[in-house]
Amino acid sequence: MSTRTNRISGGLLVLLAAASVAMAASGPAPEVPRDAYVEPAGRIRSAALEHGQAYDILAYLTDRIGPRLSGTPAAENAVRWAADRLKAYGLEAWTEPVTVPRWVRGEESALVVAPVEQKLVVTALGGSDPTPAAGLTAAVVEVADFDELHALGAERVRGRIVFYNKAIGKGVRYADVIPLRIRGASEAARLGAVASLVRSLGILSARLPHTGVMDYDTAVPRIPAAALTAEDADLLHRLLATGDTVQVTLRLGCRTLADVPSANVIADLKGREKPGEIVLIGAHIDSWDVGPGATDDGGGVAMVIEALRILKSLGLQPRRTIRGVLFMNEENGVGGGRAYADTHSNELARHVAAIEADEGVGRPLGIGGSVGAGGIERLKDVARVLSVLGPMQATESGGGVDISPLERAAVPTLAIAVADDDYLAWHHTAADTLDKVNPRELAEDAAALAIAAYVLADQPAVLPRPAAPTGPEH
Amino acid sequence: MSTRTNRISGGLLVLLAAASVAMAASGPAPEVPRDAYVEPAGRIRSAALEHGQAYDILAYLTDRIGPRLSGTPAAENAVRWAADRLKAYGLEAWTEPVTVPRWVRGEESALVVAPVEQKLVVTALGGSDPTPAAGLTAAVVEVADFDELHALGAERVRGRIVFYNKAIGKGVRYADVIPLRIRGASEAARLGAVASLVRSLGILSARLPHTGVMDYDTAVPRIPAAALTAEDADLLHRLLATGDTVQVTLRLGCRTLADVPSANVIADLKGREKPGEIVLIGAHIDSWDVGPGATDDGGGVAMVIEALRILKSLGLQPRRTIRGVLFMNEENGVGGGRAYADTHSNELARHVAAIEADEGVGRPLGIGGSVGAGGIERLKDVARVLSVLGPMQATESGGGVDISPLERAAVPTLAIAVADDDYLAWHHTAADTLDKVNPRELAEDAAALAIAAYVLADQPAVLPRPAAPTGPEH
Repeated sequence: MSTRTNRISGGLLVLLAAASVAMAASGPAPEVPRDAYVEPAGRIRSAALEHGQAYDILAYLTDRIGPRLSGTPAAENAVRWAADRLKAYGLEAWTEPVTVPRWVRGEESALVVAPVEQKLVVTALGGSDPTPAAGLTAAVVEVADFDELHALGAERVRGRIVFYNKAIGKGVRYADVIPLRIRGASEAARLGAVASLVRSLGILSARLPHTGVMDYDTAVPRIPAAALTAEDADLLHRLLATGDTVQVTLRLGCRTLADVPSANVIADLKGREKPGEIVLIGAHIDSWDVGPGATDDGGGVAMVIEALRILKSLGLQPRRTIRGVLFMNEENGVGGGRAYADTHSNELARHVAAIEADEGVGRPLGIGGSVGAGGIERLKDVARVLSVLGPMQATESGGGVDISPLERAAVPTLAIAVADDDYLAWHHTAADTLDKVNPRELAEDAAALAIAAYVLADQPAVLPRPAAPTGPEH
Repeated sequence: MSTRTNRISGGLLVLLAAASVAMAASGPAPEVPRDAYVEPAGRIRSAALEHGQAYDILAYLTDRIGPRLSGTPAAENAVRWAADRLKAYGLEAWTEPVTVPRWVRGEESALVVAPVEQKLVVTALGGSDPTPAAGLTAAVVEVADFDELHALGAERVRGRIVFYNKAIGKGVRYADVIPLRIRGASEAARLGAVASLVRSLGILSARLPHTGVMDYDTAVPRIPAAALTAEDADLLHRLLATGDTVQVTLRLGCRTLADVPSANVIADLKGREKPGEIVLIGAHIDSWDVGPGATDDGGGVAMVIEALRILKSLGLQPRRTIRGVLFMNEENGVGGGRAYADTHSNELARHVAAIEADEGVGRPLGIGGSVGAGGIERLKDVARVLSVLGPMQATESGGGVDISPLERAAVPTLAIAVADDDYLAWHHTAADTLDKVNPRELAEDAAALAIAAYVLADQPAVLPRPAAPTGPEH
């Protein structure tokens, strides 16, 4: 007790006391012993910050393996390397098959050809079909969103390139524009458009296009889809604002080949009392092809491997099993997440929590996600232990794309919250590189993941499971 | 007097008093009447900020003409457009011939091929010869500067690609690394290198390469030269730091064609008493090919045109002539600057000042440059008038590449100083686009240029001419 009271302010003590009352009222789950995890948390923190390997792990992945889109040789290299590294750290590690799409980027270009000639910087969206080899040329029609598209109607969309121009910021969140990227082509095709362009889903204007996944509705023709840089979106907007007809020639050489076999990488740190009960910690090992995916999601991969390494090296064997899963194919198919849920369907009832690390690499801020009634109080207990790393919050926001298939089995899906101010500047771009990662913050994230997993796997009671599945995020 | 004392702090008054004593001792040049220019400066300010056209002028140049490297059709479009626009504003405008190089960028790529395969983002330096069509492959040797290169010696450079890796910042200025870009290829070739790569001369890591001019020493073989992005420079550095031999395949398709005719654009606002005495205000109308050159130097072009427009529209005809010159070919040859100095050699003794606007587009901070004894006090008088736009300094730093040939005739060469925090993030890149320009700050810059030119062209005395030519900057 003395350790805790030395660290926690009076105001927080009041909150904790109130929470304790609430817990007592809401159910039988016993509270985490208040000082049970102070000692191991401190040891984990020291191991991560004083002798950590997270940054070196990430540097190997970005520098020696590099971009690793599902289905590429580099993605397979990443799988082999990760399994080998986990085994080298003394973990029980293996791979499990995942079938993934094989989408290949080709030459790509776009050019305004009327009323003036100007080069546009574009990148094909993942999954897009190609244009004809000679390119396609059409007039551009600009809309902010699907409402504006539908208001235009087929008459003004048919034969055109639809240009979705909605910038993140000023109340517009990333999640608000994702549908334009994913469904924009088919929504436009439904009205007769010949191609679609979307303003990059990013927050920095550095002539840097952001790719990302798109998907076709099978009921309408498949038209090519690409992202424009912020600057090029602004240029098109200004040209269109004069009332001129703006013609663009778009050439995309991308194509989808046959599906190929790939794999998830899995490693268990077996529990000492209930090895069949599992706390999953995950990240995705694939990245987009345009860059080495240092923050999306190389950092998460490093956190998972490092968390397992630290727990193993410290001899911290919790009551339940902690399972690391490096999912393949988060970016363009979620094949790994689905394959894991299918392969382990008979275990999911005994998955007591799943934490995904795919929200960036800034310093840790806490833990959050989907839990059942009273679960937020249990997360506050975890956050209290995490506070060995700084001020921490517990929230109801968290989870991850790869663990979203576990929601059907009512697994509590969580994330370590991180300060991600720059994440949307770089993710899905060529500039998602190692220099964007602060080694100290990455080490703190790995420590936070290890501590949270250890507490959830070791504490006597498990988290209340959410009452109903919540929707996936992407 | 009252206006001035109302605006200037006590400390500055002491300085001005001291300066006044120094002036009285140093020569006969009379001080600018202290309140003579308050009224026209205020009118210029209003015209620029309330009804200005600088941003519209710049938007036309970037959006409708775009990148305009010397010798391209776009550069010729820019010349025609600028002359027409100046005439439309009632100025006497004409063009004068300039012979310019015609350097053409081709396909370009670079790939680390050992110890791993990784794509590098590069851009050929302007003036570079191509590689063989199939590319050239060689081991990379890294140096920070020429001292390190020479310390390595021919034994360790022969047959290699020399990689200059010196980042701007931490005491390293842009001017410190320019020689690596300009002379790096020939310095490396002298020791037997087969190509050279230079870390981009920029201050932002956004996987954005910065091009810029290079030059060959005729005494050594011409080897290809390109700039790497900051991220790719960091990657090469990390790979080399492990002791591995790092092999890179470089392909550059750029080539130099025969020189072509082009032009400077010139416009006079004739003086009312001494039309043969000239205050030159200049900027360069060419840009690099990779982007529309909004800040380098579209902003300067807009300032010059706007300054002339404002003075003409307000009927402010100074004692001497104000001449706007939009120089061609600043970026890769200074053909326009040299042609102007040659064509007007018999007028240069009557060029009483030259101000170049090529230092970015942030808010104006003052005026500075090369002047003779006591001249800094005259510049302080000008800064005092400029302070209608905010706090202003007079310094001994300023000038410009295009007006540097005028130094041989001891013309005072000046610049409006601007806040240029972001200039080196974007200049010479594809991201030097209109969105990087703040319309209000651009208008203030144009007003500052107009005010400074007006005061220098109208005040009874001229600036003391510098005693000796000073070196050009690039």
